[in-house]
Amino acid sequence: MTQNIYDDPDFFAGYSTLPRSVEGLDGAGEWPVVRSLVPRLNGADVVDLGCGFGWFCRWATTQGAATVLGLDVSRNMLARAAADTNDPRITYRHADVDAVELPLEAFDLVYSSLTLHYLRDLPRLVAQIAASLRPGGSFVASVEHPTYTAPSSPAWTTVKGRDVWPLDGYLREGPRVTDWLAPGVVKQHRTIATYVDALLRNGLELTSLVEWGPSDADLVAHPDWERERDRSPFLLLAARRHAGR
Amino acid sequence: MTQNIYDDPDFFAGYSTLPRSVEGLDGAGEWPVVRSLVPRLNGADVVDLGCGFGWFCRWATTQGAATVLGLDVSRNMLARAAADTNDPRITYRHADVDAVELPLEAFDLVYSSLTLHYLRDLPRLVAQIAASLRPGGSFVASVEHPTYTAPSSPAWTTVKGRDVWPLDGYLREGPRVTDWLAPGVVKQHRTIATYVDALLRNGLELTSLVEWGPSDADLVAHPDWERERDRSPFLLLAARRHAGR
Repeated sequence: MTQNIYDDPDFFAGYSTLPRSVEGLDGAGEWPVVRSLVPRLNGADVVDLGCGFGWFCRWATTQGAATVLGLDVSRNMLARAAADTNDPRITYRHADVDAVELPLEAFDLVYSSLTLHYLRDLPRLVAQIAASLRPGGSFVASVEHPTYTAPSSPAWTTVKGRDVWPLDGYLREGPRVTDWLAPGVVKQHRTIATYVDALLRNGLELTSLVEWGPSDADLVAHPDWERERDRSPFLLLAARRHAGR
Repeated sequence: MTQNIYDDPDFFAGYSTLPRSVEGLDGAGEWPVVRSLVPRLNGADVVDLGCGFGWFCRWATTQGAATVLGLDVSRNMLARAAADTNDPRITYRHADVDAVELPLEAFDLVYSSLTLHYLRDLPRLVAQIAASLRPGGSFVASVEHPTYTAPSSPAWTTVKGRDVWPLDGYLREGPRVTDWLAPGVVKQHRTIATYVDALLRNGLELTSLVEWGPSDADLVAHPDWERERDRSPFLLLAARRHAGR
């Protein structure tokens, strides 16, 4: 199964202090753009693949979602998510998303935030997602941007006085081991084309592709985000199952 | 208008010696994949935006195209293209693609090879392309990959003994001045998202997105292409106008 780094004590302790863990969705720089990709949720059935602390699940209920299923591999995160709500519309369940079996034509929205780049079998999962969507349903996902995951040494480097992102291995897909919050975190590097191709092969129509970067307003609040414009940190994708099937 | 670097004598002399200029389509590494994106052309009306020496236009007639219109800003290239055919199905015309007016619903295929990254007004051109396609028609294009066009210093750099591509400015779109075959060549850097968004906003459905790299067979013939796997040189896009409109 996929490495469950989130239940590593050091990783979990570090992750719990990130702005997105403390402040929730508003602590995630990319959230305003992700939110713009989410369809109307009034009466919708939603599943969140890699729900973490459940911030999105709870937000979905504020938007009128009828039911929200949150799946995650981390028992630590699920415990905190469960403690943070008593809303009967929300169900949390332990699951390895890399091996999950989703019900057929059960959801109006499949959502996944910064999870897919940990998973090893993308084609299998996207086939599951496509089959689990109702006709007209949407898939909205964010992943670490492929230029972010590709390098063998993913750290800003100074070349001739300029900070550059040392891109290599972009077309060589596969695991990348990095030290982020804890040593030995395993991510799966894939190209943008591979993510898009997985959607198209499963009959989904791409409706948005965003390479997130800070807005001018973001930079006023967070001047240190400027260099995220040198290479995008997050790829956002939205796709739709055709209504006519 | 767009810089017409192809009629610069030094650039034209250098460009004319490239494998893709001498050998035609088979001298272009990406051609086998581009060809796989081109729909059946039997009886089709085709336009090639930035047709250069006319290799694709001539190939299209071998595939049964009914008419092929080749547009280019370079009078040098058009002169050679015209000299290389007497096929009445092919018409070459001088045009600045950045300002071209295409006829409505006139084409089954709009094709463009390594041209769009020279143009300044992508939204205008894609609107023209979408309106010029018949329902069910296709748009197939290649551009220099955005990770290739982005850097302020686009040259392989050695960092800690590794060759890396020094990515910066990826999200800062706009002109890039490089020295390639001649000094002062102006290209327009855009992100992958911007190319895809232009298609979707004009009602086209994305059918393929390829980040080209050498195949294993390519590397047997061209071992020096190995580092193209460190960052893709070409982005290939295919899109379709919905048949139902």
